Amino acid sequence: MKQFLILLVLFFIVTGVSAQQPMSLKDATLGSSSYLKPEMPEQVKWRDSNHFVMVKDSILLQQEIQKKNEMKIISLSELNAALKVNGLKAIKTFPRFSFIDPAQIWFRANNKVVILNLDNKKVIKNIEYPEDAENLDFCTTNSTLAYTIKNNLFIAGNSGVQQVTNDQEPHIINGTTVHRNEFGIDKGTFWSPAGNKLAFYRMDETMVGDYPLVDFMAREAELVNIKYPMAGMTSHQVKLGVYNTATKQTIFLKTGEPLDHYLTNISWSPDEKSIFIQELNREQNHMKLNQYDVITGDLIKTVLTEQDNKYVEPVHPILFSKVDPEKFYYQSRRDGWNHVYEYNIQGELIAQITKGDWEVTDLAGFDAKEENMFFEATKESPIERHFYRVNLRSGKTDKLTAEAGTHSCIMSPDQQNIIDRWTSTNIPGQLDLISLKKNGKQVLFEAVNTLKEFDLGENTVFTIKAADSNTDLYCRMIKPNNFDPAKKYPVIVYVYGGPHAQLVNKTWQNDARWWQYYMASKGYIAFTVDSRGSENRGKNFENAIHRQLGVVETADQMKGIDYLKSLPYVDVNRIGVHGWSYGGFMTLNLMLKHPETFKVGVAGGPVVDWSMYEVMYGERYMDTPQENPLGYQNSNMLNYADKLNGKLMLIHGVQDPTVVMQQSMQFLKKCIDLDKQVDFFVYPTHEHNVRGNDRLHLMEKISNYFLENL
Amino acid sequence: MKQFLILLVLFFIVTGVSAQQPMSLKDATLGSSSYLKPEMPEQVKWRDSNHFVMVKDSILLQQEIQKKNEMKIISLSELNAALKVNGLKAIKTFPRFSFIDPAQIWFRANNKVVILNLDNKKVIKNIEYPEDAENLDFCTTNSTLAYTIKNNLFIAGNSGVQQVTNDQEPHIINGTTVHRNEFGIDKGTFWSPAGNKLAFYRMDETMVGDYPLVDFMAREAELVNIKYPMAGMTSHQVKLGVYNTATKQTIFLKTGEPLDHYLTNISWSPDEKSIFIQELNREQNHMKLNQYDVITGDLIKTVLTEQDNKYVEPVHPILFSKVDPEKFYYQSRRDGWNHVYEYNIQGELIAQITKGDWEVTDLAGFDAKEENMFFEATKESPIERHFYRVNLRSGKTDKLTAEAGTHSCIMSPDQQNIIDRWTSTNIPGQLDLISLKKNGKQVLFEAVNTLKEFDLGENTVFTIKAADSNTDLYCRMIKPNNFDPAKKYPVIVYVYGGPHAQLVNKTWQNDARWWQYYMASKGYIAFTVDSRGSENRGKNFENAIHRQLGVVETADQMKGIDYLKSLPYVDVNRIGVHGWSYGGFMTLNLMLKHPETFKVGVAGGPVVDWSMYEVMYGERYMDTPQENPLGYQNSNMLNYADKLNGKLMLIHGVQDPTVVMQQSMQFLKKCIDLDKQVDFFVYPTHEHNVRGNDRLHLMEKISNYFLENL
Repeated sequence: MKQFLILLVLFFIVTGVSAQQPMSLKDATLGSSSYLKPEMPEQVKWRDSNHFVMVKDSILLQQEIQKKNEMKIISLSELNAALKVNGLKAIKTFPRFSFIDPAQIWFRANNKVVILNLDNKKVIKNIEYPEDAENLDFCTTNSTLAYTIKNNLFIAGNSGVQQVTNDQEPHIINGTTVHRNEFGIDKGTFWSPAGNKLAFYRMDETMVGDYPLVDFMAREAELVNIKYPMAGMTSHQVKLGVYNTATKQTIFLKTGEPLDHYLTNISWSPDEKSIFIQELNREQNHMKLNQYDVITGDLIKTVLTEQDNKYVEPVHPILFSKVDPEKFYYQSRRDGWNHVYEYNIQGELIAQITKGDWEVTDLAGFDAKEENMFFEATKESPIERHFYRVNLRSGKTDKLTAEAGTHSCIMSPDQQNIIDRWTSTNIPGQLDLISLKKNGKQVLFEAVNTLKEFDLGENTVFTIKAADSNTDLYCRMIKPNNFDPAKKYPVIVYVYGGPHAQLVNKTWQNDARWWQYYMASKGYIAFTVDSRGSENRGKNFENAIHRQLGVVETADQMKGIDYLKSLPYVDVNRIGVHGWSYGGFMTLNLMLKHPETFKVGVAGGPVVDWSMYEVMYGERYMDTPQENPLGYQNSNMLNYADKLNGKLMLIHGVQDPTVVMQQSMQFLKKCIDLDKQVDFFVYPTHEHNVRGNDRLHLMEKISNYFLENL
Repeated sequence: MKQFLILLVLFFIVTGVSAQQPMSLKDATLGSSSYLKPEMPEQVKWRDSNHFVMVKDSILLQQEIQKKNEMKIISLSELNAALKVNGLKAIKTFPRFSFIDPAQIWFRANNKVVILNLDNKKVIKNIEYPEDAENLDFCTTNSTLAYTIKNNLFIAGNSGVQQVTNDQEPHIINGTTVHRNEFGIDKGTFWSPAGNKLAFYRMDETMVGDYPLVDFMAREAELVNIKYPMAGMTSHQVKLGVYNTATKQTIFLKTGEPLDHYLTNISWSPDEKSIFIQELNREQNHMKLNQYDVITGDLIKTVLTEQDNKYVEPVHPILFSKVDPEKFYYQSRRDGWNHVYEYNIQGELIAQITKGDWEVTDLAGFDAKEENMFFEATKESPIERHFYRVNLRSGKTDKLTAEAGTHSCIMSPDQQNIIDRWTSTNIPGQLDLISLKKNGKQVLFEAVNTLKEFDLGENTVFTIKAADSNTDLYCRMIKPNNFDPAKKYPVIVYVYGGPHAQLVNKTWQNDARWWQYYMASKGYIAFTVDSRGSENRGKNFENAIHRQLGVVETADQMKGIDYLKSLPYVDVNRIGVHGWSYGGFMTLNLMLKHPETFKVGVAGGPVVDWSMYEVMYGERYMDTPQENPLGYQNSNMLNYADKLNGKLMLIHGVQDPTVVMQQSMQFLKKCIDLDKQVDFFVYPTHEHNVRGNDRLHLMEKISNYFLENL
């Protein structure tokens, strides 16, 4: 009896320890970005060369290099006390802040920009902005804040508020991002180095027709017009204004015609006298780096140009040397990979700094004398990111991060130390302090593995050959829980396939969407391959899809299918596919061009016909419908709807301003015309992605569709 | 061997005869209104008291009463020859025509109104109208055509074209139907008896906000605004103009305020001096029959009024006596049933002509001396229609049609003979000539039973008691093909449930939708019950639903479920429901209020919240949301979405201007908020009903939903 009890106790202990549960859909969907997201210190920043800070539990902590103890700098309550002294309202969470200098930080709090002295914990200054202000851009050099109210631009600083623009026409928009955030553009204001001038985008959309969206949640449905120029149509026109805060005058740079060109990657010269714009023609195959005089607006010169018979896509502003204001660093893919070049402002190439069959993914900076450059790159592997130092003269390159995985680093001001934030397949997150001098490493923080209680399918990464028989493609496969190689399992392919995205990475869980674990727990193999066209694999890998979207990607995806079909444990009659946006387009490609293979598909927010997609992205990859009619025809899913055989569901956000719902509507109409059954669902209040709690509903909808039909 | 051969031959003969096939979905959906619709002679009309005509195979034939032989009057080719003589283009099918007198007919042909003499087969006159003319109204008395171009009214006649209205504001609309075709209104122009004057509706919608629909089939989606005043909101304003064709002047009747009242059921006095309008207040509970002077526009008097604490719904214009111009006939439901009353124009009641617990469904006319009135009514049974004659003085009523079924009759000019077009459960269509004098009947035509080759489930009609335990409700049930009472069958309830519709009738196949036969062939019992609120059962039966739509109807529908559950062969765990429009609303009511009963539902074009439905219909049955907040709350399906348990699909026409898609959109949003799975489909180019070939796609979609889930 005693023995039995002991056994019973042992049984409970053992099962208690190993009682892993499959992941619920809620955990998979909502957990990954909230309660199951591994906790890491926030706002890790260098304060000076010997100290770095981080926020933990609403307290700003500081650590000295070489020492392991953390010191409190200021807590949220102390910060609120400082606000109160100045009559400012309290805030609820520790604000996102930036250092102005080691003593001062600035942050936003209740419609104020606040400058705080960390040493005496006192508010030095606060600048108010209106509640409906958007596009805030704070210049620490002159403590002046730029912001927009509706379509006009304002600045607020020591001399009060100045209205920079006063356009009555609501479709002339100042100070916001333009060109739909393509070409690396994510803002619309650019302070000059000393803060005396403010460059800003002015976008004229009056020549673009209104595109109707409808808010169905109103008491009576309400029209919400947007501007959505489609490929080949009249597009908006952008100029760059330069506002002089002293004279209160604006001049516009004489960027010339045709007016629907792209003004990308704005950089100020260090002396504030000129602005450099990477100007791209609408055809996107000819870029000029133009220098403009900010007093006259005149073109000073074209510093350099870049051409490509497919497309040029400038995404990095030039970076001026700090030791020689006549010199700048320029990133280009012109040799097939994104690399860094050293130029003088006469446009003469001094040197190609990095070189090789890999891509610089971030130019982090230089040492004081600019003898060495620090950068992040795919040099080790396309699915890893490491931090490197290259000597500008010798070309000698050192890899500064060690572990296989994805590293993101910040350098100390003296470039002697690096804080390395990294993850890897089994590392949910780690912070290391790397000393370059001592060649040593100190682990600062290891995130808790929030998934350790879950029973997850086996997750592996490997390569297959692309349809060109030569190129390696990275794949991720998750096997079903309790995998038995003697059984046959259905497969769900998760696909994106378009440019600027890479789904398989050596990050935690190999970048798997946790939904894939959920479906694996339901007995499905989850498979993903990054086909040609996807990110970080060089120019040729990406632009293989040019003018024929869907063709090469589909061929490569089918190589993934060939691989799957070669596996004895794959049920070749039960293969499904799901993707969103470009992945929705790819889902349609696969379902319609390979109806013999795919039994079930769910296409979310899909592009159906590229002529209904917007100008900037659409024309880069497809040219215009007028220039490339055959390409548009071949990539138009309406022309393949007659091949529909399996179960296909389209899902669209009714408010989608990115891939407009007419794409799905026209596909449905075509299916109806052809008497083909197709399924559909909408999220009435969502845009291009279903975010927030509603995402659980979406993933249930998608999961059920596979569970019921595959 | 010989014997075997004989047996074999016999076998083929027997099976050949009985080789009935179940009905395909295509036959059920598209066949019923086209290739499987029983053919009947078209345009059967009396020419004079001894002759009637009909069109068969594009030939106008004439038959003399008492004789059985048909005589050709004119063929399509002869008619085209006559057109050609006058330089008019040929037409492709025999036109819909009307007699002006026994010798002359008029019809429309290629933007012409043509008057043709049947005796000499010559065109007497033709009046041209523009290609974009709408709302044509031809006055045979003066050979003048009224029509609209966009929002303005024109007439064309002997003295050329006159522009009656010239409103530049497009939301002032002249000469069209108003008040969304409620109150029996189906046109917007009213010629005076001698054709000297034209009364017309003028609708001012400028005070009603634009309601946005979107045409997604355009190259870029296009906004299509409609006017859709919702219950409780500002509504349009209607006036009645009177145009004098001689003076070319228009006066507007002084119909007074409030301006959002309803001007219904326009009648001219025989002397053309006044117009009678059944004016209804916006609350729809007080009707005044007002007489206006058409010279001054002044109100002459209120002839009679009708009030009801629920609603008054005038749908029949008054009909003036031909023997005494001071007398008119008036239809009202004021005693609880629609009956005919005789009045003088002082508003004094002379007599109630019909009376009883049944409804007059058509006042067909009188004999020359107006001693007898002819009418169609539900006197025999609510699900039959017979033709009757009542003596105005004695009240003696004779039923003139014999067979149980649905009769629709036209009287000869001398009222001595009747052509009876009728159907019954097993009669797809029959034309009889009934002689009143001889009390005899001649069968003129018997339609071929187009369904005889089909194996159809048994179709029965019967009654159950309503939820009030007292009222009879008519039900129709179709049993599965090859019904076996020892088995258990799932049920699909097809429901409408709203006013102005009756689904169970003694017509061919008991008015079954053939889709019900299709589902019966798939093993489902098809069931329908006309609950309280539906048509032709008297005022109390209908208005039991007032201010609480969905409550009484649901209770009655559940009595149908109780009946079904009492049947040993019903699988009580597999009950589904489908309906469209009000039936979509009822589907939601049943699914959400009785989740324990209904496993699967398909709600097409459903009303979800009556406050999003239009003014005229909505306020009649629900009052305004301001007046009846609790009623609106209780009938709002958004408030029951949390009860959703079964599989529910909503379907909506994206262009629906009747039940706007926001109804479905808001329901989806609510389900998403509640994390309730629901399905949805849209028909991007369709309005409130999916018509034409696309209907097959719709019915496949609906059928599959039941086949897969029920």
